[in-house]
Amino acid sequence: MVQIEQDILAKNNTFAQANRQTLAQRGIFALNLVSSPGSGKTTLLCKTIALLGQLPVAVIEGDQQTSQDADRIRATGAPAIQINTGKGCHLDAHMVGHAMQQLDLANSSLLMIENVGNLVCPAAFDLGEAHKVVILSVTEGEDKPIKYPDMFRAASLMLLNKTDLLPYLDYDVDAAVSYARRVNPTIRVIQISATRGDGMDEWLAFLREGVAQA
Amino acid sequence: MVQIEQDILAKNNTFAQANRQTLAQRGIFALNLVSSPGSGKTTLLCKTIALLGQLPVAVIEGDQQTSQDADRIRATGAPAIQINTGKGCHLDAHMVGHAMQQLDLANSSLLMIENVGNLVCPAAFDLGEAHKVVILSVTEGEDKPIKYPDMFRAASLMLLNKTDLLPYLDYDVDAAVSYARRVNPTIRVIQISATRGDGMDEWLAFLREGVAQA
Repeated sequence: MVQIEQDILAKNNTFAQANRQTLAQRGIFALNLVSSPGSGKTTLLCKTIALLGQLPVAVIEGDQQTSQDADRIRATGAPAIQINTGKGCHLDAHMVGHAMQQLDLANSSLLMIENVGNLVCPAAFDLGEAHKVVILSVTEGEDKPIKYPDMFRAASLMLLNKTDLLPYLDYDVDAAVSYARRVNPTIRVIQISATRGDGMDEWLAFLREGVAQA
Repeated sequence: MVQIEQDILAKNNTFAQANRQTLAQRGIFALNLVSSPGSGKTTLLCKTIALLGQLPVAVIEGDQQTSQDADRIRATGAPAIQINTGKGCHLDAHMVGHAMQQLDLANSSLLMIENVGNLVCPAAFDLGEAHKVVILSVTEGEDKPIKYPDMFRAASLMLLNKTDLLPYLDYDVDAAVSYARRVNPTIRVIQISATRGDGMDEWLAFLREGVAQA
């Protein structure tokens, strides 16, 4: 089984390299958004697109079933493609390469890839992105980084989301950040509330800087 | 790849049948608790054990890393074993069979198996349990049943958890139940708040009845 897994990952990495090359040539800053189901990724994307103004954004949505998320993104005016993985538990670089071809990507733009909600399997699959961004909502408890360490190790940035709910929870923000740093000492953390707007300035600055440097 | 997947599932099903036979012979009611990370499974288990009184309960905990959950369970006085899956995204019947041998299981008792937090992969793996119970927290949004239909189809019971947070959310309980019924018309739904105690009577009655009939 180890050999089969290595073959799958090697094949994936070849496609990921091709995606990365295309993105670099066109100055596109691509992020791979990973999290548990229900951490608020799609709401975050909709709010982000609205706030980015003139900066062009395209979105690839991954889910086992339904096109609900792509429909929500398209309602903002941004182009979006839905990938349904069926039995599959993660996006792979081959699927993403096809979706990139179908999307009308602008040069010097942002590409957001919303992975299947799963804190385990997407950690192993490079899609050609600049960074994995892990979204952890405060309703999920503090200990997720040490219980699912591969994902938090693979991510460059953790968005600690739904901070508007903190007054109603018994939640220790410092503990969550400290757990994340224990598995990944260099991970950057931004506390946000996508629904209320807290922390969005810092997140938008990260995105604008990424596009400028892509 | 399809052949390999079938081989893995066939092998798993053989172990699951052996577990099921052992459980039936000893009158043990076993549940496989599945959900996203952070839905509140461990808190629910701790509260449930405290409320069950004299009914013997043992717990098998699945996580990629750490023994935090088993430690929390053992603090209640119930026997618990932690399985760390490492890179793995789900428990399988072979792991559970070994854990059952190590646990000091009482006849006519309850065995709770807390799977790895993942709404995708554990759906395909029978552990020998009487039922899969899917926990959906209201902070995860209403649409998870249709986006992760395999899991909600595989479960007999959905616990809609964290209802104490409903006043602070824009959440439509009827929509969540209706989505669950769309993929699984016979699924039973109990609304609970493990932290506040709402709905626990109905859940405990389900458990007591299951043990009585096992």
